[in-house]
Amino acid sequence: MKIPSRLRENALAIFKAGLQAADPLEAIHRHVKRIGLKLQVGEKVYNLSDYERIFVIGGGKAGASMARAIEDLLKGRITAGLVNVKYGHLADLEVIRLNEAGHPIPDEAGVQGTQEIVDLARQAGEKDLVICLISGGGSALLPLPVPGITLEEKQTVTKLLLACGATINEINTLRKHISQIKGGQLARIVMPATLISLILSDVIGDPLDVIASGPTVPDESTFQDCWRIFEKYQLVDRIPRSVLNHIRAGLSGRVAETPKPGDPAFAKTQNLIVGSNLLAVKAAAQKAKELGYNTLILSSFVEGETREVAKVHTAIVKEILNSGNPIPPPACIISGGETTVTLKGKGLGGRNQEFALAAAIDIAGLKDVVILSAGTDGTDGPTDAAGAIVDGSTVQRAKDLNLDPFKYLQENDSYHFFQPLGDLILTGPTNTNVMDLRILLVGA
Amino acid sequence: MKIPSRLRENALAIFKAGLQAADPLEAIHRHVKRIGLKLQVGEKVYNLSDYERIFVIGGGKAGASMARAIEDLLKGRITAGLVNVKYGHLADLEVIRLNEAGHPIPDEAGVQGTQEIVDLARQAGEKDLVICLISGGGSALLPLPVPGITLEEKQTVTKLLLACGATINEINTLRKHISQIKGGQLARIVMPATLISLILSDVIGDPLDVIASGPTVPDESTFQDCWRIFEKYQLVDRIPRSVLNHIRAGLSGRVAETPKPGDPAFAKTQNLIVGSNLLAVKAAAQKAKELGYNTLILSSFVEGETREVAKVHTAIVKEILNSGNPIPPPACIISGGETTVTLKGKGLGGRNQEFALAAAIDIAGLKDVVILSAGTDGTDGPTDAAGAIVDGSTVQRAKDLNLDPFKYLQENDSYHFFQPLGDLILTGPTNTNVMDLRILLVGA
Repeated sequence: MKIPSRLRENALAIFKAGLQAADPLEAIHRHVKRIGLKLQVGEKVYNLSDYERIFVIGGGKAGASMARAIEDLLKGRITAGLVNVKYGHLADLEVIRLNEAGHPIPDEAGVQGTQEIVDLARQAGEKDLVICLISGGGSALLPLPVPGITLEEKQTVTKLLLACGATINEINTLRKHISQIKGGQLARIVMPATLISLILSDVIGDPLDVIASGPTVPDESTFQDCWRIFEKYQLVDRIPRSVLNHIRAGLSGRVAETPKPGDPAFAKTQNLIVGSNLLAVKAAAQKAKELGYNTLILSSFVEGETREVAKVHTAIVKEILNSGNPIPPPACIISGGETTVTLKGKGLGGRNQEFALAAAIDIAGLKDVVILSAGTDGTDGPTDAAGAIVDGSTVQRAKDLNLDPFKYLQENDSYHFFQPLGDLILTGPTNTNVMDLRILLVGA
Repeated sequence: MKIPSRLRENALAIFKAGLQAADPLEAIHRHVKRIGLKLQVGEKVYNLSDYERIFVIGGGKAGASMARAIEDLLKGRITAGLVNVKYGHLADLEVIRLNEAGHPIPDEAGVQGTQEIVDLARQAGEKDLVICLISGGGSALLPLPVPGITLEEKQTVTKLLLACGATINEINTLRKHISQIKGGQLARIVMPATLISLILSDVIGDPLDVIASGPTVPDESTFQDCWRIFEKYQLVDRIPRSVLNHIRAGLSGRVAETPKPGDPAFAKTQNLIVGSNLLAVKAAAQKAKELGYNTLILSSFVEGETREVAKVHTAIVKEILNSGNPIPPPACIISGGETTVTLKGKGLGGRNQEFALAAAIDIAGLKDVVILSAGTDGTDGPTDAAGAIVDGSTVQRAKDLNLDPFKYLQENDSYHFFQPLGDLILTGPTNTNVMDLRILLVGA
């Protein structure tokens, strides 16, 4: 039933190249090189002989692989290390300990591990190097409320803010001001040691202060902002007393603000994105060029309702066929980011499979067009597929099997649409997440 | 309040260039040139001395200006002419008569005029030239049901099909098979004369057989398709008897099929798009290049829910600022087509103003970004504005006036958001329609 074609094979190869760049191990090895006693981190070079001890700390879903990569690079040089990871996300390591903790709901194991990470960071002195490994989920996996506030109270604040429609920025402002490490405070703890923070971004646009709530990054928000948010949503009477007291203490200067840009805490800090959607998109684009396609990176910032976003993508495909704009065939358009699905049906699927289904309807009957959409984490929605791949014959092949594409789209049932067609992309869980990749190929 | 800037001025100039290419008079003069006794129509050259008489026929909202352009070109050579136009859409003409008729609901004045057009076309002989002027609204403005079917019965069919979710293709298939001129049948009437059909397209992708139901274009659909549509939607018992009888007559061969590709009716026919969204987009792109912008035509096929489509456009703006992809600043991205708005509020606005409002929210605070969205017909939704223009300061300027952009978007009240800001684009009615233009500028 499935028609293999060069376009399909190429689309899969381009996706694979993007995926590879998002692999935590690969991502670190691409950006951190060991040359004898030198460690090149992005543009910066560190002389390992300058440092007495090296500590490794951090947290996030990709923590195990990132720790593995650092042990590869610094064999025998690491003094101690502790990284918080999700339950079951382990790796064979020599020195760095992995502490399993709760995600997406933080738990006491997370608090315990984060406390130990803080203790380790405090040990580091002026002649020590601390490497911090941050990845998606790092905010939940590195919970450490200030003394007097419980994990439950912290979560109550988040729930209250979500319920009244607060923005993610506003929620993060609060989170940073009731945490001991978020909002740059981990960097302050690491000081006076040298700090290298290696970051795998799962946030659109890679805002350093947002990823895992930016534990090693200057914070622009203030206790006053927190209070304004409480007032804006009329929460003063509903916020847990302990939280309110802490914010008040901050307002009156009895508790220190998070470190701002220019703070000495960051004098010896390097924050480096080693993996991100844009880096994956660029790696995919590189592969597409090698395969001979005129290649355009559309955007890694793509958001919005999936089926509508798909329409704009297929509109570009149609223009390529119609007039050779924005680029002439053989053309490859790549976009990244993460769309949303407003569930109306009761089917099984994910945003990438739904994108592919909506796109299949739009390109039905077109020749020499292949569209792939897949998540870099390998699990699109609550399914075992990363995404799906479609072409101009998909709708007809579905109809031959008595599958009505409109009905499956209406029911948000893209998984059951693609499963019998054999058009699912199955990678298995990749233990990384730099959001989604969409690859549009238009043949000559 | 309004901040004039070079970016804004350039965006408006680029829009104006696109608008100019869509002007019916200009559109015809760009594609039809008179050089002495020669008439160059696109790539083809006609020797006017070959023709004894020249007739001008047609219909559509831009009919008056198109007729004006043809009279300019063929001064003194036109024998007679009749073009159906919307009530009040008139022009000073010497020979060609304009017949005012109903739009979007066809009326008896339309039927009467179309009958006269058919009579005129029948007069044309082998040595005559017929010029047909087609523009948006031409389907409603050129109504001529087959004998025995009334205008009301024809409209009943359309309403029944719309109500059961039939596609526009299916509705057109029916329309063509109960009309005397649609689906290429006007070309058959003009035969054996030479026929030049000049078309101003208001349909995405410029499908010749769809614009005004393709009176001069081969038709691929059949009476059998009509019957299948009746059966598919279980309409056989609900369709007016006269219509059913006509389709049955067609099925049994008692009534002729619409002319198919290769039919002799088209042996001396030239169909030429003189104005379209893509041509307007290209003219705008040309202007942007002249102004020094790296320019990309995204697509003229853009459809979808306006605010979601806006998100994909602003995602591209963000990537330009972030990484210089898909093109580095100073950058101009141009898209066309026509989006939709699912009304949820009770405000006043149109798809272009809503696009601009949604975009303004996304780009709030960004520097050196201007986004313009406007319809080429000059009347966006039920408003006197063509669209609106926004930049990174728009949201702040609105807040300074106590206007909450989210509320106005929620209420579909974009007109009242932009009016106090002075950011509406007011062109007045342009008497043309090649859908919308969106212009995104990102400065250096």
